[in-house]
Amino acid sequence: MVEPKKKVVLIGAGNLGTQLAKALNRSKHDLVQICSQNETSAKLIAQKLPYTSYGSVKDIEQDADIYIIATNDASIAKVARDLSLGNKMVVHTSGTVDMKVLRPASSRIGVLYPVQTFTRDINVDFKNIPLCLEANSVTALTMLKHFARPLSNNLYEIDSNKRKTIHLAAVFVNNFTNHMYSIAHALLSENNSSLDILRPLITETARKVNENIPEKMQTGPATRGDHDTMLAHIKLLEGHKDYQEIYKLLSQSIIHSTITNNK
Amino acid sequence: MVEPKKKVVLIGAGNLGTQLAKALNRSKHDLVQICSQNETSAKLIAQKLPYTSYGSVKDIEQDADIYIIATNDASIAKVARDLSLGNKMVVHTSGTVDMKVLRPASSRIGVLYPVQTFTRDINVDFKNIPLCLEANSVTALTMLKHFARPLSNNLYEIDSNKRKTIHLAAVFVNNFTNHMYSIAHALLSENNSSLDILRPLITETARKVNENIPEKMQTGPATRGDHDTMLAHIKLLEGHKDYQEIYKLLSQSIIHSTITNNK
Repeated sequence: MVEPKKKVVLIGAGNLGTQLAKALNRSKHDLVQICSQNETSAKLIAQKLPYTSYGSVKDIEQDADIYIIATNDASIAKVARDLSLGNKMVVHTSGTVDMKVLRPASSRIGVLYPVQTFTRDINVDFKNIPLCLEANSVTALTMLKHFARPLSNNLYEIDSNKRKTIHLAAVFVNNFTNHMYSIAHALLSENNSSLDILRPLITETARKVNENIPEKMQTGPATRGDHDTMLAHIKLLEGHKDYQEIYKLLSQSIIHSTITNNK
Repeated sequence: MVEPKKKVVLIGAGNLGTQLAKALNRSKHDLVQICSQNETSAKLIAQKLPYTSYGSVKDIEQDADIYIIATNDASIAKVARDLSLGNKMVVHTSGTVDMKVLRPASSRIGVLYPVQTFTRDINVDFKNIPLCLEANSVTALTMLKHFARPLSNNLYEIDSNKRKTIHLAAVFVNNFTNHMYSIAHALLSENNSSLDILRPLITETARKVNENIPEKMQTGPATRGDHDTMLAHIKLLEGHKDYQEIYKLLSQSIIHSTITNNK
């Protein structure tokens, strides 16, 4: 299978843009330019890469093969309206934005949504990141798959509707889970205890569902119907009405799921 | 430092009991007996260990050095009332139960609470598990530390009050986090998608807080105040009123934390 090297322009220099630039640089593709509303951010990334220029969207290179819009969701449609790229492939990287907002930019459009959380300074191995691919024609999808293969070993064909549900589910396992860690950290800090005492538990909780179904891994007072412990916990949370509400609602939901799963 | 080998009796043959028996067997201590209300469970564990007998609490060995009550929380006080062990060390393993419920059993009592989630058939490396230790005298605490050192490299001296908060925080990072995974799994299943697409994200979310403070790792629509995406998600959850409530409450809590942390 021939997977020809592509000339890539990346638009967006935030957390995802930074990590994507690094992954493109490690792949055999040519990242020729990074564009950003914030030229300083684009410059900071481009300067670390050997063959990459930077600029604003109005100075965009016209002769690349693929244009990746990795800006925040709210800017994607605006960026697309500012581009006029004929039939060059234009994709965005969002979990929620519809593919069709890219129509003003090109006749060949698609989505490359990496299901991962990105922080500017924390490097991730792109090879393991699931990439959800979508395009507006069979030819475009084939081209996008060939392009994505050197980036990741986990490619999925996912339409816009499915992608939105995956993004929503990702909010639960990432954003909401991280908030559970933050609440725990706040409770421990008040108590002069370190989060270190919970870090092995955090790791093990995630590790278990790598090979198991989460419903089967559920433990704790709610799932075993231990009302005394739940009442003691609710009492302990007297000073935090917001955490108390969260405790009650999630415990109810676990109790409900336990009953439903055991039916 | 001399850490003499101890003769141990383990009471309880559930998830924690099973894993603790394996850890004791790997340590230099002598697990002489496993007692359980359910003799079959005790037998199943004991048969796999070379020098361990099994029985019910009424047949308990009288000449061990330390007795570990690893039953469910509700049974600890009852087991303690059934024992009469003079000044032999008696400890329980619960995150929530007060140490003093052990008083009927012995004059030397304590707690050895492992901050981890246990499943009967999933082996864990006890060496990395934080153990919270408490005892009713300096001598008893010293003895308990010496006993626990071959089991784990993470020993903490924690009193009953602090231990209760740690257990509560553990509910957030384990039970509630796992429920987030379950909700994501339910949403994906309805959509004919596999949880595999989120597993790298689950792993990375946990990995990040191994070296970082969770508040600094928060991403997503709530923390960046992206109301359009939150409204779209709430709409997507129309068919699941319970998940919708959870989405709203956790998003509000993240928004509130973001404002507080940025003050």
